[in-house]
Amino acid sequence: MRRGRGAKADVVREVNYRRLRNPFPPMSVVSDDRLEAIHEAALTVLEDLGLRVLLPEARALFAKAGARVEEDMVWIGRDIVAAALASAPKAIRLHGGTPARDVDWSPGALTFMPASGTPHATDRERGRRPGTARDYRELIRLVHHFDVLHLHAPIVEPQDVPVHLRHYFAMDAQMRLSDKVPNVYARGRPQVEDSFEMVALARGLSDEAFHGGVHCWGVINSNSPRTLDIPMAQGLIDFARHKQVTVMTPFTLMGAMAPITVAGAMTLSHAEALAGIALTQCARAGAPVMYGTFTSNVDMKSGAPAFGTPEHVKASLLAGQLARRTGLPWRCAAGSASNLADAQGANENQMGLWGCLLAGATTTLHSTGWLEGGLTVGYEKLVVDVEVLQMVAELCAPVDASDEAIGLDALAEVAPQGHFFAAGQTMRRYATEFYAPILHDFSNFGTWTERGGRDAEARATDVWKAVLAEPEAAMLGDRQGALDDFVARRTEEGGAPPES
Amino acid sequence: MRRGRGAKADVVREVNYRRLRNPFPPMSVVSDDRLEAIHEAALTVLEDLGLRVLLPEARALFAKAGARVEEDMVWIGRDIVAAALASAPKAIRLHGGTPARDVDWSPGALTFMPASGTPHATDRERGRRPGTARDYRELIRLVHHFDVLHLHAPIVEPQDVPVHLRHYFAMDAQMRLSDKVPNVYARGRPQVEDSFEMVALARGLSDEAFHGGVHCWGVINSNSPRTLDIPMAQGLIDFARHKQVTVMTPFTLMGAMAPITVAGAMTLSHAEALAGIALTQCARAGAPVMYGTFTSNVDMKSGAPAFGTPEHVKASLLAGQLARRTGLPWRCAAGSASNLADAQGANENQMGLWGCLLAGATTTLHSTGWLEGGLTVGYEKLVVDVEVLQMVAELCAPVDASDEAIGLDALAEVAPQGHFFAAGQTMRRYATEFYAPILHDFSNFGTWTERGGRDAEARATDVWKAVLAEPEAAMLGDRQGALDDFVARRTEEGGAPPES
Repeated sequence: MRRGRGAKADVVREVNYRRLRNPFPPMSVVSDDRLEAIHEAALTVLEDLGLRVLLPEARALFAKAGARVEEDMVWIGRDIVAAALASAPKAIRLHGGTPARDVDWSPGALTFMPASGTPHATDRERGRRPGTARDYRELIRLVHHFDVLHLHAPIVEPQDVPVHLRHYFAMDAQMRLSDKVPNVYARGRPQVEDSFEMVALARGLSDEAFHGGVHCWGVINSNSPRTLDIPMAQGLIDFARHKQVTVMTPFTLMGAMAPITVAGAMTLSHAEALAGIALTQCARAGAPVMYGTFTSNVDMKSGAPAFGTPEHVKASLLAGQLARRTGLPWRCAAGSASNLADAQGANENQMGLWGCLLAGATTTLHSTGWLEGGLTVGYEKLVVDVEVLQMVAELCAPVDASDEAIGLDALAEVAPQGHFFAAGQTMRRYATEFYAPILHDFSNFGTWTERGGRDAEARATDVWKAVLAEPEAAMLGDRQGALDDFVARRTEEGGAPPES
Repeated sequence: MRRGRGAKADVVREVNYRRLRNPFPPMSVVSDDRLEAIHEAALTVLEDLGLRVLLPEARALFAKAGARVEEDMVWIGRDIVAAALASAPKAIRLHGGTPARDVDWSPGALTFMPASGTPHATDRERGRRPGTARDYRELIRLVHHFDVLHLHAPIVEPQDVPVHLRHYFAMDAQMRLSDKVPNVYARGRPQVEDSFEMVALARGLSDEAFHGGVHCWGVINSNSPRTLDIPMAQGLIDFARHKQVTVMTPFTLMGAMAPITVAGAMTLSHAEALAGIALTQCARAGAPVMYGTFTSNVDMKSGAPAFGTPEHVKASLLAGQLARRTGLPWRCAAGSASNLADAQGANENQMGLWGCLLAGATTTLHSTGWLEGGLTVGYEKLVVDVEVLQMVAELCAPVDASDEAIGLDALAEVAPQGHFFAAGQTMRRYATEFYAPILHDFSNFGTWTERGGRDAEARATDVWKAVLAEPEAAMLGDRQGALDDFVARRTEEGGAPPES
C-alpha cells in the first residue's frame, strides 16, 4: 500500500519500443530537378552501360522481360524498371514468432537491426577473436533482449562451424533463442531453401502458410560497380519465388567501388538497386523487396573505409530522397570505423544514425555494435549503441502538453526559489517520467571515482554480462524436435555448401 | 607542377565554418493549439503568480511600464510582454575584431559556443583541478583556433585570480588572444561597465561607436523558479542601456527547479525568459536581447542533473517552437553529465546537439567540452566535440548534384567490378572531396594496434597540445597598451568586486 501520495493515481508513461514511427522531419539535400537528373542518369547506366550478371537464370529472366543480353552483360530498359517499381509492394509485414514481434516495413515505420556480417567479435573480457558459434548465440541473445532491435541480422560469422552446416546452426540459434524475425543468408539456393524450411518448421507453418506471409529477410549486395554475382542473383530469385523479402543493397564506398561524389555514388547505387529490384519482379511480380543503400566514403590518403562521416550522412539523405521517389520501404545503415567503443565510435555511429533518421529510413542496419568498418562486432559497443537507440525510441513518444502536464497548479504550489521535488505533479509522475538509462551514469565525480572511475565501455561489460547471465530462452517448445530432426537428416545427407 | 592529371583544374571544395546556415528541417513536438496553451500559461504565471525581483531599480522599471509591484514581487501584464516582443530586434549582428569574425544572430543562422561557467578544468596530462588563469588562457586559445566555435564563453572560472580583478583578466585574455566576439560576465554593474570599457579600448571604439553596434554578449540566468537576482537584473538593464546583447536563459532542470514535465518546465522557462526580455525593453526599447532556454532533467533517484537525455531533446524541441513564436534569435544548449570524454560523453553531447539543430537554435552553448553537467571543462572533450561540430558544419554545405558530380563519364570509365581510385573525376576531386577529421582515426585494427591502440580521448591530447604549441596570438597590436593602462589604473583604484 502506498502512503502519503494522496488519492490520485500515478501517471505511468510507457513507450512501446517494438512499434516505432519516425517522428523526424525528412531532410532533402538536392532539388526535385536534380533528383530527377540522378534518377535519369541511373536509368542511363542500366540502359547504355549495362550490368554484368553472372547467373544465366537471371539473364534469362531479364531477357524474357525485354532486356538486351550479350554474354554476361545485361542492358535493362526503363520500362522494365518502371514495371518493377509499380508491382513491388509499398508496405511489407514481416511475421515474428508472436504478433508482438511482427515488423511493418511501411512508410513512416522506424526499425533497427544490429551489426551484420562481421568476421570478428570482441569484448573486454575475452578480447578480439574470429567469430565463433558461442559468439553468434550470445549475440543473438543480446539482440533478442533489447526490444529496440526489431529483427535479427547475421551479426557475426560463426567461423568454427563448417560452411556446409553453418546455415543450420544459424537458423537454429535464431529460432530457438528468439521470436524476432530471423535473417536468412543468401549463400546460394541449397542453403536458402534449407533455411526457409527451418523457418517454416520452427513457426509451425505449412508450405502454403509460409508462402502466405513474410517470415524472414535476407540482404543482397551487388558487387559494385555494376555486377550481380551468382548467390546474390539466386537469392533475389529464390526469396521472390517464396515471397520472402530481400533487401537489395549496393555497398558503395565513394572513391573506391563507387564515384568519389555523393551524387555519382548514389547514381550507381540507385542503378544497381533498381536492377536487383527488377530481377525480383521478373521472378515473381509483387514479390516483397526493399530498396537498400549503404554508401559512405573511403579515406583518400589510405583507402580505408570511413563511416559516420559527413559524406556518409549526405549520401543517406540523398538515398532517402531516391527511396521516397521509388515509394518502397528502404534500408540504410549507420556504423563506425573505430577500433573500440570509445568517443569516436559513439560519435560516428550516432552521426550515421541521424543521417538515417532524417532520411526516413524504414530500417537501419548496423545500428549497434559495428566496429572497424564492419570487421568486428563489439559486445560493449552494442550496449553503447542500444542506449542511443532507446533514446531515439523515447523521442518517438509524443510530448504531453495537456493542461495537467503544463500544470499551472504545480507552478503555483512552489514559491520563488523553491523546488519541485515534492510538488503534487512530481509525486504523481516521478516513477516513470524520465527515460532510465541502461549504461549512462549521472553520478558526480566524487561518487563515480569512489566506484572505480570506470568509463562507459567498461560499464557496458556489466550490462551484457547481466543479460547473458539470465537463462537462455527456448522459444520453440514442442517444435524444437522437428527442427532438430531436420538438421540431423540434412547433416547426414551432407549439408549444403555455399555457392559462389 | 602537377603531372598526369590532364588539363582540367582540380575541383576544390571549401566550407566556410565561420558562416553557417542551419540546413536541418525544424521539428515540432506539440500542436499549434497546445503551443498557444503553453504561451498562455506562461502569461498567466507572469500575471497571476508573479516574479520575485530583488533589484529595486528593476522593480521601478517594471512599475513604470504598468506592472503591479508589492514588496519584492512583480506581476507583469501581457501587454508589457507583447510590447517587449514587438520592440526587441529579430536579428542581431555581433562584431568581432575583424568582419570575418562578425556573427549574425538572425533567423536560420547556426552558431556554436563552448562550455561555459565551469569551476573545474581537466585534461589527461594534468588531471582535474580548480580552474586557473592558465587554464582560462589556454582554453580561450583552443576556442579561438577552431573556426566552428563562433564566439567566446566564460569557459572556466580562473579561481586563482582575485574576484575583484577577475574581469580584467578575463577581458584581457579574450581580447588579446582572439578576435572572436567576447563574453562579458554579468556580475554587477561595476564589473560590466569596466568590461565594456575594455572591449571599446581593445576595438579602438569611441563611446558612440561602441554603442552603435553589438561588440560583446552576456548570459543572464534567472533563479528558477520565478526569481531574478540583483546582478542578473543589473546585467539586463546595463547591457540594454549600452546596446549590448544579453542571452536571457532560465536554467530549468525538470523535477528540481522546474516542473517534472517538459510542458511544465518550458512554461516556467518561457515565463521567466519573457520577464527578462521585458526588463531589457523597459530599460531601453529596441535593445538587443536573445531568447534563451536550457532545460534538461534530473535523475529522480539521486537528484543528479542529466544532459543529452530524451527529455533534454524534447525540451529543446518545444523551446524551439516557443522561440519561433517570439520571433527572436534563440540560444539553446548541449552538454554531458559524463565524468570523462568517453562514449557516454560523446553520445550525450551529440544527442543534445541534435536537439538544438532540429529545434533551430541560433546559437548552441556548451556545445564542446562540457563534462560533469558543467562542473568541469575537458580539454580532450573539447576536441572530441569539435570534431562533431565540424561534421555538422560540413552538412551545411550543399550536395553537388551537377552533371559533372553525377559523372556519367566516370561511371562509363570503370568496368564492372573495377574501382574508381584512378577515374578522372576522382583525380580532379580527391584532394578536398571529403571532410578530413582532426581526431577520428580510420586505420585498421593492425595498424592502430601497432601505433599504440589509443582511444579517441588519448589521441585528443595530441590535438590540443599541438594547438597550444603554436605561438600565442597578439591580436591588439598598438591597442594593447591602452588596455594595459586601463587595467593598471583600475587595479590601483581597488578593482570592482562582484555584486550579489
